[in-house]
Amino acid sequence: MAHPMTTKNGQPFDRASLESLMRRRLFYTPAFEIYGGVSGLYDLGPPGCGLQSNIIEIWRKHFVLKENMLEVDCTMLTPYEVLKTSGHVDKFSDWMCKDPKTGEIFRADHLVEEVLESRLKGNKEARGQKQDEEKEDPKKKKKKVKTIQAIKMDDALVQEYEEVLAKIDNYSGEELGLLMKKYEIKNPATGSELEPPVAFNLMFGTSIGPSSNLPAFLRPETAQGQFLNFQKLLEFNQQSMPFASASIGKSFRNEISPRSGLLRVREFLMAEIEHFVDPESGKKHPRFEDVKDVELELLNRSVQLAGKTHVETTPISKAVSEGIVDNETLGYFLARIQQFLLKLGADPTKIRFRQHMKNEMAHYATDCWDAELLTSYGWIECVGCADRSAYDLTVHAKRTNAPLVVREVRKEPLRIEEWQCDIDKKRFGPRFKKDGKAVEAAVEALTQDLREKLSMDLKNEGKIVIDVEGVGDGKVEIDKELIAIEKRTRIENTREYTPNVIEPSFGIGRILYSIVEHNYWTRAEDEARGVISFPPAVAPTKVLLVPLSTHPDFRPLVRRLGDKLTHVGVSYRVDDSNASIGKRYSRNDELGTPFGITVDFQSVKDNTFTLRDRDTTRQVRANEEEVCEAIMNLVEGKETWDDVAKRLPIFEGQEVD
Amino acid sequence: MAHPMTTKNGQPFDRASLESLMRRRLFYTPAFEIYGGVSGLYDLGPPGCGLQSNIIEIWRKHFVLKENMLEVDCTMLTPYEVLKTSGHVDKFSDWMCKDPKTGEIFRADHLVEEVLESRLKGNKEARGQKQDEEKEDPKKKKKKVKTIQAIKMDDALVQEYEEVLAKIDNYSGEELGLLMKKYEIKNPATGSELEPPVAFNLMFGTSIGPSSNLPAFLRPETAQGQFLNFQKLLEFNQQSMPFASASIGKSFRNEISPRSGLLRVREFLMAEIEHFVDPESGKKHPRFEDVKDVELELLNRSVQLAGKTHVETTPISKAVSEGIVDNETLGYFLARIQQFLLKLGADPTKIRFRQHMKNEMAHYATDCWDAELLTSYGWIECVGCADRSAYDLTVHAKRTNAPLVVREVRKEPLRIEEWQCDIDKKRFGPRFKKDGKAVEAAVEALTQDLREKLSMDLKNEGKIVIDVEGVGDGKVEIDKELIAIEKRTRIENTREYTPNVIEPSFGIGRILYSIVEHNYWTRAEDEARGVISFPPAVAPTKVLLVPLSTHPDFRPLVRRLGDKLTHVGVSYRVDDSNASIGKRYSRNDELGTPFGITVDFQSVKDNTFTLRDRDTTRQVRANEEEVCEAIMNLVEGKETWDDVAKRLPIFEGQEVD
Repeated sequence: MAHPMTTKNGQPFDRASLESLMRRRLFYTPAFEIYGGVSGLYDLGPPGCGLQSNIIEIWRKHFVLKENMLEVDCTMLTPYEVLKTSGHVDKFSDWMCKDPKTGEIFRADHLVEEVLESRLKGNKEARGQKQDEEKEDPKKKKKKVKTIQAIKMDDALVQEYEEVLAKIDNYSGEELGLLMKKYEIKNPATGSELEPPVAFNLMFGTSIGPSSNLPAFLRPETAQGQFLNFQKLLEFNQQSMPFASASIGKSFRNEISPRSGLLRVREFLMAEIEHFVDPESGKKHPRFEDVKDVELELLNRSVQLAGKTHVETTPISKAVSEGIVDNETLGYFLARIQQFLLKLGADPTKIRFRQHMKNEMAHYATDCWDAELLTSYGWIECVGCADRSAYDLTVHAKRTNAPLVVREVRKEPLRIEEWQCDIDKKRFGPRFKKDGKAVEAAVEALTQDLREKLSMDLKNEGKIVIDVEGVGDGKVEIDKELIAIEKRTRIENTREYTPNVIEPSFGIGRILYSIVEHNYWTRAEDEARGVISFPPAVAPTKVLLVPLSTHPDFRPLVRRLGDKLTHVGVSYRVDDSNASIGKRYSRNDELGTPFGITVDFQSVKDNTFTLRDRDTTRQVRANEEEVCEAIMNLVEGKETWDDVAKRLPIFEGQEVD
Repeated sequence: MAHPMTTKNGQPFDRASLESLMRRRLFYTPAFEIYGGVSGLYDLGPPGCGLQSNIIEIWRKHFVLKENMLEVDCTMLTPYEVLKTSGHVDKFSDWMCKDPKTGEIFRADHLVEEVLESRLKGNKEARGQKQDEEKEDPKKKKKKVKTIQAIKMDDALVQEYEEVLAKIDNYSGEELGLLMKKYEIKNPATGSELEPPVAFNLMFGTSIGPSSNLPAFLRPETAQGQFLNFQKLLEFNQQSMPFASASIGKSFRNEISPRSGLLRVREFLMAEIEHFVDPESGKKHPRFEDVKDVELELLNRSVQLAGKTHVETTPISKAVSEGIVDNETLGYFLARIQQFLLKLGADPTKIRFRQHMKNEMAHYATDCWDAELLTSYGWIECVGCADRSAYDLTVHAKRTNAPLVVREVRKEPLRIEEWQCDIDKKRFGPRFKKDGKAVEAAVEALTQDLREKLSMDLKNEGKIVIDVEGVGDGKVEIDKELIAIEKRTRIENTREYTPNVIEPSFGIGRILYSIVEHNYWTRAEDEARGVISFPPAVAPTKVLLVPLSTHPDFRPLVRRLGDKLTHVGVSYRVDDSNASIGKRYSRNDELGTPFGITVDFQSVKDNTFTLRDRDTTRQVRANEEEVCEAIMNLVEGKETWDDVAKRLPIFEGQEVD
């Protein structure tokens, strides 16, 4: 494992135990398992599904509600033409190479990376050097444990390998093929030669309609639907800028060979925000003041080029004013993203923000910061925050002629001094005949500098000569009878511009998995007893109801408590199995349920119940109303367990563990 | 239009006005409109998206939380093999026919239906008869208005047409082809001949993985994912029956030629419950008592065959005891579905439940009731409640050998008297060689009756002859040295059974559209002023904040009110445009926002605000705290507007409309 991890209470983290727990307790399960499964496809069971709903609800409150974003729900089916225009048909692909003997397929960049790294490790081993985990490239997300052969390498070759690895995201398919030849990179399992890399587009294709006449894809991101509706959203927002749209929904990537469990999947839930901003506003944000003191660990490009993987935290206001982060809007969202992750229970020591290297960004981005969470797979990109500039709106507007722009009345009318060309249309037609349109267009396209020069020609020679592609020999002469060129002042009352887009994009499945890792630990007295300490608002189920036994006297009390909790919107489950109360609570700790209520014979007599806290296993005893009120306060964050334990009588009468 | 509709306040309903409102206010919009759009694909804008979220949240509380259902989130990508087994590859299709000249494609049953109906109307017109809307077949959901030619028909032909229409769901593709020939049904627009009907599968195909080696579909329902996980869900539920799983997610149908706006789309949100029940339990439901007095309008098969489209309501307990509805579990869900629809604001006079005719059901169903809502398109199926028996679990178990069964310890061990066959395995192999397995399997498959008869043969003739397919001539002789057949008593301590499934399946988009229709009306004094009276819990936005003008003094108050509402989870929007307050409230009535708060100069002085009720346009005036408290009570349903208007001072000082 790349990073020796420890849990909340300082014990070594064991991924195998957690993954076994998550599958045993049905947080997730491989999809279609009884049919043999399909790699990269997982189903969420009840705890995973509850966790996902809660994350989404918190996201919606934290972003959409708080900032009055315009939430939309667009279709996943997307016509070919849209994704051709957006650049995804041409650029949304990875390089793959095939083993012609076994039919096995590898992602070329991952393979080169993996093999070179493994050889470098073998070299260090042969030289008896310590494996220095800390200095590795911050971009490396995961590593597969391989059998490493201890073979010593030349210093020059080591340096060559290191240079290749530093630029691994920057190679074309052809270059990757050359590297594979040069360094004899083959199928690691069989040693057989691989075919040269070919581009593989990551979108799932389909076609719409009964005669399959409309080729389409499953969307690779929710963003395109938001861009296509820009004009309507602006209208809905009464033409007021800046504003943000938002969308929560599934997207799809046909990964070449997905591994890493929930972290690399073919169908995934995203939550994306498109914040539209005037590029001339300096990308200020009206609520930046609210977050200015939030401290972030920010690894920008120069820090990474200096080989650092860790820096001190910086207040976001300082980071923006010093130019570490480009502008307020980007800074605002980075701070808000961190606040969101902390709300979910992310470990504050395992969050960092890393700027993409120039060669690492998606085709539409001019800048990008990832919020990364540290897990046993390394630093995982969980939220991307990209500056897409005016890229998407521009390409769609150009392709469709839809006015994906903002028009605003200028406070001060703009006075523009410019050279204007006046054409005598009556004479233009007879003179140029079928070429009239082309010549006219060429005149309109003349630059200001050229117009100034041509005005002199007109004055001096009584005619001008301009380039018109496709007409005669490409040069066209125009007499002074047909054209005048004069300097005039034009007044513009409205301004028209294409907004820029800042896009915070959340991978909900990755966040979900990372939050589980950050909150998983085992009781010091017994390593087999796992606990997941979700914050109450995040926990899939808030309360476990545990009747002491299956005695019929307990049933009406359990039902009454349950109905009461349902009424106030608190989710609960009943465990009336035959297992001991301790066993039942252990099972429940694995599900991350923060509170438990025991119903015993005393309850039948006096309507009092014990309320148990998952993290401390301590208990208080109070009547039905008090217990329900305490739970509501705990779930809503109005009280902590410590508050409750001070207020209500501690219960130690019964050993439940 | 099939049904002359009226709105809440008795005015004629005008669909065109409502649809124009819904598109203008961005409830929905055709997807990819700037690229020309794709029929059957729509995006939800902010109000539609908010409405959808609220419907889902209410659904989750009403069903999942209330009954502790096990919610799962399964993938949409589904391998071919799964849907082959479920029967969807073979049976989930419609018949289509093509116009070879224009390339236009028609859904065959819809075309036959449409043309015959139009001719019957023409006949009535020619005879000067009134078009009797009320007597039409309750299954007809929608009708396209066509130019009807008034041509008189023979009585015999009229009767023939009516018989064909009554059985329209029952014809095979070949039969539809014959009908088209017989009645000369052609392309209604051009009159040209159509090709014979061919089956068109309604699933979208794709393939998974880099070498496209795994053919797959986008799921046509969420149900299959739930069935495939049955064993794990039962385990999660600690083997306790009955229980229900639930799932909310998109499904896909490649409709042949979708029209009817949001009612027939190619990508749609479903919420499905699979309630697993012991078939021998009589399908009792533990919470049936809670709903026994709920009254429903129930059109079962015999009522429909008698030509009725309306019956009196019946308490569900009476309907179950009289056998109108087959069992308690089905009855329980029908009642709960009605309660849910009423919570959303469905008009109680526009809900009915209709049982499917035998020939109308999906391939997996043994019984099915639809909850239908009356709209301007006719009665629309919004919720289907099917009894899928053990169909799905059985076919998947058979295909995969996964034990999709419940095993329970019998309270009383079961004593079974039966004929058992004992094979002498040592002699069996040498005697039958490679056919040994087949012969053994044939012996094990023998029925009890046959075993009894064979035991006599064995006694009398010292041998038996049994059928073994594929071995020799299909007859195999077994000597008494190799086999014994005896009657013995076997004791079974566990019982193994495949549960039956009751499936309430909700089409969220159809419900959403119908709820909008049920709640739309126009102010009596001005037909142009539309209002949508969503219940507060359903309304996309709860509060509109309206500062009197853009005066800077109002800004801090608006922001403070907004933050306060966000804090208590109440969604709001600000309208600080230059329009008059009356105009702004009108705009807002169209969005269905139930409450408005005006911020005026008095507010700046004394921190009081007017609170406006959408439906009555009446206002009260109170301080910030009182106004926020009233809104919370109204949204949570703790108070009605009447309660608030009695409690807080009425405000009439300012004419806002």
